[in-house]
This record gives sequence, structure tokens and C-alpha cells, in this order.
Amino acid sequence: MPLLDRLIALVDRISPPEDVHAHCDLPCGVYDPAQARIEAESVKGIQEKYQGSDDEVFRDRCILIKEERADLVKHHLWVLWTDYFKPEHAQKYPQLHQLFWDATKAAGASKKSEDPADGQKLLDLIQEIDTIFWETKKA
Amino acid sequence: MPLLDRLIALVDRISPPEDVHAHCDLPCGVYDPAQARIEAESVKGIQEKYQGSDDEVFRDRCILIKEERADLVKHHLWVLWTDYFKPEHAQKYPQLHQLFWDATKAAGASKKSEDPADGQKLLDLIQEIDTIFWETKKA
Amino acid sequence: MPLLDRLIALVDRISPPEDVHAHCDLPCGVYDPAQARIEAESVKGIQEKYQGSDDEVFRDRCILIKEERADLVKHHLWVLWTDYFKPEHAQKYPQLHQLFWDATKAAGASKKSEDPADGQKLLDLIQEIDTIFWETKKA
Amino acid sequence: MPLLDRLIALVDRISPPEDVHAHCDLPCGVYDPAQARIEAESVKGIQEKYQGSDDEVFRDRCILIKEERADLVKHHLWVLWTDYFKPEHAQKYPQLHQLFWDATKAAGASKKSEDPADGQKLLDLIQEIDTIFWETKKA
Amino acid sequence: MPLLDRLIALVDRISPPEDVHAHCDLPCGVYDPAQARIEAESVKGIQEKYQGSDDEVFRDRCILIKEERADLVKHHLWVLWTDYFKPEHAQKYPQLHQLFWDATKAAGASKKSEDPADGQKLLDLIQEIDTIFWETKKA
Amino acid sequence: MPLLDRLIALVDRISPPEDVHAHCDLPCGVYDPAQARIEAESVKGIQEKYQGSDDEVFRDRCILIKEERADLVKHHLWVLWTDYFKPEHAQKYPQLHQLFWDATKAAGASKKSEDPADGQKLLDLIQEIDTIFWETKKA
Repeated sequence: MPLLDRLIALVDRISPPEDVHAHCDLPCGVYDPAQARIEAESVKGIQEKYQGSDDEVFRDRCILIKEERADLVKHHLWVLWTDYFKPEHAQKYPQLHQLFWDATKAAGASKKSEDPADGQKLLDLIQEIDTIFWETKKA
Repeated sequence: MPLLDRLIALVDRISPPEDVHAHCDLPCGVYDPAQARIEAESVKGIQEKYQGSDDEVFRDRCILIKEERADLVKHHLWVLWTDYFKPEHAQKYPQLHQLFWDATKAAGASKKSEDPADGQKLLDLIQEIDTIFWETKKA
Repeated sequence: MPLLDRLIALVDRISPPEDVHAHCDLPCGVYDPAQARIEAESVKGIQEKYQGSDDEVFRDRCILIKEERADLVKHHLWVLWTDYFKPEHAQKYPQLHQLFWDATKAAGASKKSEDPADGQKLLDLIQEIDTIFWETKKA
Repeated sequence: MPLLDRLIALVDRISPPEDVHAHCDLPCGVYDPAQARIEAESVKGIQEKYQGSDDEVFRDRCILIKEERADLVKHHLWVLWTDYFKPEHAQKYPQLHQLFWDATKAAGASKKSEDPADGQKLLDLIQEIDTIFWETKKA
Repeated sequence: MPLLDRLIALVDRISPPEDVHAHCDLPCGVYDPAQARIEAESVKGIQEKYQGSDDEVFRDRCILIKEERADLVKHHLWVLWTDYFKPEHAQKYPQLHQLFWDATKAAGASKKSEDPADGQKLLDLIQEIDTIFWETKKA
Repeated sequence: MPLLDRLIALVDRISPPEDVHAHCDLPCGVYDPAQARIEAESVKGIQEKYQGSDDEVFRDRCILIKEERADLVKHHLWVLWTDYFKPEHAQKYPQLHQLFWDATKAAGASKKSEDPADGQKLLDLIQEIDTIFWETKKA
């Protein structure tokens, strides 16, 4: 590290700069529950197609593609929970942690189920998260 | 494969069932240009943050995270182009292939640029795709 | 699906079999906080090496490899939280959700920090999770 | 950023350096349709093995591994289309976009088919791309 | 690269600094055969669950999840072999290469087998590697 | 599993069918050292471009993209070593294990080096593997 930078780094320790990327891994500040919702719609869509088919290969592919899509739902939800939401949100919405736990567990349950009703349960929980999310964005 | 299935498979060759999953890899039928748009917003957001920072580590992280996000933009656009759009769409929108080529090239260009104007160009092209997409969904 | 299986499936709806893979995506039942801990040790190790080096390329690589390792920490912790822990655990350990939130946020914070003290904070939180985990396994 | 670099950066804005990495994400300039072809040979190979087996587990694995290999075919083709080919190529080969669309759609179709003839169709389209690719390299 | 760094780089060529990250890609120096062992336990766990189930969807999921877990076993073992072990270890343990070859081949074999005995063979080979690993760490 | 399949499975235990997919994870039987070579050419190409550039962002991107490409080299080589080569090859080519160890270590070393001579060393080792590979295919 060049000398000048060392000096800047030293000054920073004494008087830290405003943290422009607090509480988020990605410094971009872009979050949207639509990412989880789109994958969850895919999960439910696959469950519906599975019910309507007798083709073994097709059904096999349903199971494996649904596995991946449900994993993406979980990933997008976890990122939202850990990276977007801040302590003040958790205070205002005391159900927040439980809601994310239930939603990610519902995504896991959808891997094991070929019933579109399970996909719908997942979508309903994501809808609850979506409502809270947009309230915090407006605040 | 059990005997019964072999028989069904045989019958299928003679009189193929309606292809419920034509033109899409994922049988779910769920597509949404929002997936590409959200990642592109992230690309532009990172370019803006890069301009506003003098922190070397932060800027390094901007470059590497933008690389990933721009790759996701390209992936979501490619999937839309190959999996969602059908020959009749390409006929109705003769600019379709060029538009996707330009948009995915713009995503690549955003990896090399720290200028938010390049992120905006990418977003504008995705907006054009989005307009066509929703017209085809209504049709 | 062959006839026999259809019958079994039908019977299952009326009297569901014991759910051998309840609450876990992977049916294998194998979980171990060591997976998160090893990656977190890597995060801290990289922070230490970063401090001890003046080589620009080496420091760049530290930042990008730490980013990946911290992502793996988050992933392993999220899986543990959602897939391993069950409602009875959350009842017995009311701090569980907050602890996982803090730990995954600490992993995110370690991406932005080159200070091994931040890596250590992350390791301490994983240690708390590890203690609870092994108590629930013994129970 | 050290002072010297700031100066260089400033000069660059006024008189930009020759763009050594134009039109490619990877600055290395290495492309080869062999990457797509090898994965497509794998797709066709799996279809042949599927036909020759009665083992359920083996056939299940065929379906899931073919899914991954066909995804790699699509990825390598998309990268070639967007990153390697330039506007002058598209002008000289007006069939370029359609050819890549057909080839990536053929890769998607191979996921759904256990017929080696579909794998061969994919290979034939990649061969057409390969011919154009090496003509542009010689030019 | 700033002038000071250029000078340091020049000096380095004449008298290279102690290589702080010799023989490892990750500069962190953290390795642990537990990573491969945990995934291999998962492989064996899945084989056991597969034997105990008659549910087609469950068995399909076993096959695909086992495929992923066995791939992780291979990856962790390969990294250990190439990145952790040094020529002096290979000299002291002449069976090292063969042992890793056998272990990674056993992981591949476990993808094709639903017999927990094959998962156990894999675990036994990882145990042999683990013993050598910890001996080299103590040395 | 339908009754008929159970019977087949039972018969298989007594008289196992010819193992059509012995020694390979992918049942397709397609391997080609070109996959590792193409990525290694990319590694060397990046090292050359790095030397010819003074642009900090460009050089940062070189480091991170080279990291990924070198990882792909390692992956393709490991797969070749474990999945393609069989005990009779190892007997005929006693240098096989050492050669793969050296080559994958050279790929790791290329991550740390911006010197194209290191990329070339990697390519030379892959060439040695390639020669052996095609000899075994002809045999």
C-alpha cells in the first residue's frame, strides 16, 4: 500500500468516513422481493405441470428443476433477510425473523411436494414479506 | 421402464401428446424481464457508488461484484431470448435478435465501465425488451 | 406412473406415511457447524495475510477470495438455520433467530473489512451457534 | 488511488488509450466453439446410453446430467454469440443471429429428448457455427 | 502501479521475499478434511434413506442430491490434494497420490450406487487421508 | 419401485449386468483435454494483457477473471484424472499422478503470477497430458 494511502487509512481510523455501504454486502443498495417471488411462481408452475403429466422423463425433470428453483427462492429470501433488513426494521416488525424462517422452510417443503397448494403457501408468505419490504422503503 | 409405460411410450410415438412444455427448458412457463432489470439496476448502482468513493478496497469490491451482476444480466437476457421468445414473436418483432445482442453486449460493456451512463444504456435496452415482452404476453 | 404406484400414492393421501425427511431439504440428516467455521477461519486468515503484505496483486486476490469465503459462511449458516433447526429448538433457545441474523450480518461485514478482529467476531458468533447445535443433538 | 494514477486517469479521459479489450468480457481473446461441441457430444452420448439401459437409477442420472450438459452448451454458445462475434461478422453472415437462436433452442430441446437424433441436430448446428467462426478467425 | 511499488517489485525479482502463500491458491492456509468427510456422510446418509423408502419422488431426489454431494466430496478432496499437500509430504507418504485417486473414484462410484456400503468405503478412504493430514500438521 | 423392477433388481444382484458406465461419473464417455487447454490459453492471454496495460480497473479485472479461468483449468484436469483415466493407464504411464499434480499446481501458481511464462508452463504440462490421453484413446 503506497505511503499516501497508509496516511489516509490512519486518518480513517481516528475519524471514520460515513459508511456508504452499511448493512449490505452489495454496495449497490438494490433489493426486490420480486426475485424470490418469480422463482416461487416457477415452483408452483412446475407443481401444476407435474400433476398434468404422465410422462416419466418430464416428471423427473420437474423434480430436479423445482429443486433448483426452490433453492433460488431460499437464497433470495436469505439475502433479503440478512442484507437488506436493519435492526430498526426488526424492531418495528417483531414477526420479521419468524416470517423469513417460515418462508424459507416453505421453500424447502416445496421441494418435497408436488402439490401446487404448497407452492401457493410459499407465495403467500413471500407476499407478506413484500408488503413489509415496500413499507420500509417508503418510510 | 415398466411394461405399461413402454406401451404408453409406444403409443406416444404414433400419436404424440400435446407438447405441454414446448419452447421452454423450464416447464413452468414463468418468465419476467424484471430479473434482468433488477441486476442491471445493481450494475448502475455500483457504478454510482464507485464514483463516490476513494476507498481502494471498496472500489475493488465494486469491480468484482459488478462483474457478477453483469453476468447475471446476460444470463437472464439469454434465457429470455432463447427460451421464452418463439418464431412468431421474431416474425412480429424483426428487431428482436439485434436488440438482445445489443443488450447483452451492453451488459458486457458495463463490466469494463465505471460510468453510470453505461449502466443506464443497459437499462434502456432492457426496457425495450420489457415492452415487447409484455405485448407478447397480452397477445 | 405405474398403476401400483398410483394405488400407493392414493393410499398415502388418506394415511400419510411417517415423514422421514421432515424439516430438511437434504434427506440425509447430516449437519455440522464446522462447515461455516472452517470458511470463517479462512476469512480471518485472509485478513491477517492482507495486513502482512504490500503486494498489490496479492491484496486484490485477498479481497476477492474473502468475498467468496464469506459468502460460503453465510450459505452454511442460512442452511443450518432454515433446514436443521426446528420450532422446538427456537422455543428452547429464544435467541436463535437473532443469533443467526447477527452471525450472517457479521459474515457480510467481514467482506468489507480487512481487520482480523472482524473475522474473530464472526468466529465467536459461530461458536455460540455451535454450542447450541451440539446441545440439541444430545437432547 | 495514488496521485500518479489519478493523473494517468485524468489524462486517459482527455485522450483515451486504445481499447485493448473491445467486444469481449474476458480480456484474453480466447474463444473456441469446441467448448460447446464437447458438451453437445456429451448430450448425444447420454441419449445413446439412455436408450441402451433399463436401470432406473442410471436413467434418472442420465436425465439430470444431460440437463447440466445442455445448459453448458447453451452457455458456451451464448458467450460466443455475444462476446466473440462483432457487427462486421453479423453483416457478412446475415444468418448469424438465427443460427445461434436455433442452436441454443436445439440445446434446450435436447433436455427434453432421449433421442440421439436430437443430439445430432444440435451438433450439426454447432458445426455450422464452427465453420463461420474459423472463417472469421482467418479473415 | 505506483512508483514505490514498481521499485519493490523490481527488488523482489532480484531477491524474492519469503513466499507467504506458497503451494496454496487461497492465501489463508486453512484446510480441513472435515469438509470432504461431512459431504461423504451425507452421501452415505442418502443411500440409507433411499433403501428405506418406496416413494418415487423421494428416491428421485435422493439420486440428484447425492450427485451434488458426491461432487462436493470430489472437489474438497482435489483441493486438498493439489493445494495443501507439498512435495515433502508426497515423499514421506508415497501412497498419497494413489489414495486421493482411489478416494475421488470412490466418490464417483457413490453417485452410481444406492448401497450405503459404498458410502462407507468412501468414508474409510477419507479417514486414511485425514490421518495423514493431521500427521503433517503436527510435523 | 414397481414389482417388475424389483424382480429385475433382484436378478441383477445375483448376476450383475455389464457395467456400461464403469470409471466415469458422466455416463457419456466424452472427455477432451481441449477443455483444460482452452481455459489455460485464456490464463496466459490474460497475463499478456495485464503486462500491456496501465489501467487499474482493467488490471483488477484481469486478476479476478484469471482466478476463475485457472479454477476451471484445475477442475477440467481433476475430472480427467479421476474420471477418465483407469488403473491400466496408470500402470502404463507411471508418471500420470505426478503429472496431474504438477499441472494442477501450475494452474494454482498462475493465479498468483502475472507472468505469461507461468501460463506457458501450465500449457506445456497440459500438452504432456494431451499426448498421453490421445495415446490411450488409440490403444
